[in-house]
Amino acid sequence: MIKTRLSKRLGLKHPVIQAPMAMAAGGKLASAVSQAGGLGMIGGAYCDPEWIESQFEVAGNSDIGCGFITWALAKNPALLTRTLERKPKAIFLSFADPEPFVKEIKAAGSLFICQVQSLKHAEHAVDCGADIIVAQGTEAGGHGAVRSTTVLVPEIADMLVKKSPATLLCAAGGIGDGRGLAASLMLGADGAVVGSRFWASHEALVHQGILNASLAATGDETIRTNVVDIIRKLDWPSGYSCRVLNNTFTKNWHDDHTGLRKNLEAEIENWTQALGKGDADNASAIVGEATGLFNDIKPAADLLEDMISHAEKLLRQAPELVLT
Amino acid sequence: MIKTRLSKRLGLKHPVIQAPMAMAAGGKLASAVSQAGGLGMIGGAYCDPEWIESQFEVAGNSDIGCGFITWALAKNPALLTRTLERKPKAIFLSFADPEPFVKEIKAAGSLFICQVQSLKHAEHAVDCGADIIVAQGTEAGGHGAVRSTTVLVPEIADMLVKKSPATLLCAAGGIGDGRGLAASLMLGADGAVVGSRFWASHEALVHQGILNASLAATGDETIRTNVVDIIRKLDWPSGYSCRVLNNTFTKNWHDDHTGLRKNLEAEIENWTQALGKGDADNASAIVGEATGLFNDIKPAADLLEDMISHAEKLLRQAPELVLT
Repeated sequence: MIKTRLSKRLGLKHPVIQAPMAMAAGGKLASAVSQAGGLGMIGGAYCDPEWIESQFEVAGNSDIGCGFITWALAKNPALLTRTLERKPKAIFLSFADPEPFVKEIKAAGSLFICQVQSLKHAEHAVDCGADIIVAQGTEAGGHGAVRSTTVLVPEIADMLVKKSPATLLCAAGGIGDGRGLAASLMLGADGAVVGSRFWASHEALVHQGILNASLAATGDETIRTNVVDIIRKLDWPSGYSCRVLNNTFTKNWHDDHTGLRKNLEAEIENWTQALGKGDADNASAIVGEATGLFNDIKPAADLLEDMISHAEKLLRQAPELVLT
Repeated sequence: MIKTRLSKRLGLKHPVIQAPMAMAAGGKLASAVSQAGGLGMIGGAYCDPEWIESQFEVAGNSDIGCGFITWALAKNPALLTRTLERKPKAIFLSFADPEPFVKEIKAAGSLFICQVQSLKHAEHAVDCGADIIVAQGTEAGGHGAVRSTTVLVPEIADMLVKKSPATLLCAAGGIGDGRGLAASLMLGADGAVVGSRFWASHEALVHQGILNASLAATGDETIRTNVVDIIRKLDWPSGYSCRVLNNTFTKNWHDDHTGLRKNLEAEIENWTQALGKGDADNASAIVGEATGLFNDIKPAADLLEDMISHAEKLLRQAPELVLT
């Protein structure tokens, strides 16, 4: 077992939080991760209350959290109140100012996890009272920004030492196996947030055709783009983009937003049909660079166990690198 | 002392290679790093033979290497022959196909270090016979591409296990202190290539005004851009950009290449004058995200010693994270 401040304070067996991936992380995945000793999360995403309710039902009484896209939650703040009635262990917010929601989260007894993509936003998250800051690098799948995990994590760690030493820190973005977890701990994190690797699990809500494309892909074959938001008519704030497999759809439109907008209705129909069929050339596989680190789909509990035992081995052997 | 395959095979005290930063890494820095136990490198860059000769003179008989920008070397291949007469310990190539140069490098008895920015290019580097592959993440200062260190390193490590287990691997991009070095080793690298931290050393050829701006900057304040190449009339191949501090110059032109090209001669004069004065608002500080990890300038030997002792401590303590 790997014990860090994160696992101790949260009472987890493993210092791993499963990323609340929009649509892909339902109650089955969240529950499997929590039961295996990590912290599982429902991906509340764009705030469909019925879907979220149904996923909490699926999760049963597992001790899980729920994540939201902050700017979407701001349009539907009552959903937070409804979700907090479920007594989630944590609420995970990312992508916009979390300040309006913190008081309610804390009053309900949930932990407030705040994912950030820059040092500046990390400082604001501390000011807002985040219990855990997640430093998300650009290598992550799905939405993110431009900074990379390798520097963002230690830079935020240095800031926390000065400003708020009790605040916990997790690394996110590119953590696909035990090597990434061990590296995160060396960089100064208390644990890791893992998305893509759990996305390729038995429990995630992802079409087999989409998964198959990801298993075959290397990390070279992902791209950060805005076309996935244009096609879904999602009004993302500037500064964010979505990492997906680079396929026929992104190759057609990534450099031609004007063309995509001109053909939008027809393209939406193509994309949506492709998604339903699991056609990974014409819909989008929302996965990070870490897709290059795995080529199988397993139960989430097995993935977590593999990651932990690999990291344990690396951490145990680390002193052998030092000659005294 | 940290001992890895890299330090053992190259007879180095420390598994650290100093990045051959164009213009900034002269003989003084290269010599200081090699004498302190790493591998120092002259940044041969755009291939000015007189400058390179003069820097080898400055370095004296230190055991150093020399780096080139491969596409620039291809326009002036005789320079490699001339450089190899100096019996450099290694030749470090990055940014284009190295194949035409490998035979001559090896025949001269120098090690061939090949920096890559993707898994695909790493596979080609193996086919070309690279002794050491450097996996450079986008967080690096100066030229680079889009993949991040956290995944690129383990993904290339996995490829090497299958294809060429004897080939050494270094991580580059974002390695600014002992945490980054320890993390690199956890990710599967045999050592690290360090640029920005050595750029902010007493021995680097960087104007004090430019350095001061970097010391004050956080990692949020760098940007990958092409305007630094446009202003220098450098014909870089597509797919690469240059990470610099985001300043008045980049804010003016990063989104307006057409405007910059229209005003090019006047802007070149402004930029060049600013560079001469160390005016970091109007010239460019070529530094990576790791600029957020340091706020002092020290002798290169001290920087290296700090990095090693910090990494040693982390590696020695790593097993304490594992409960048995």
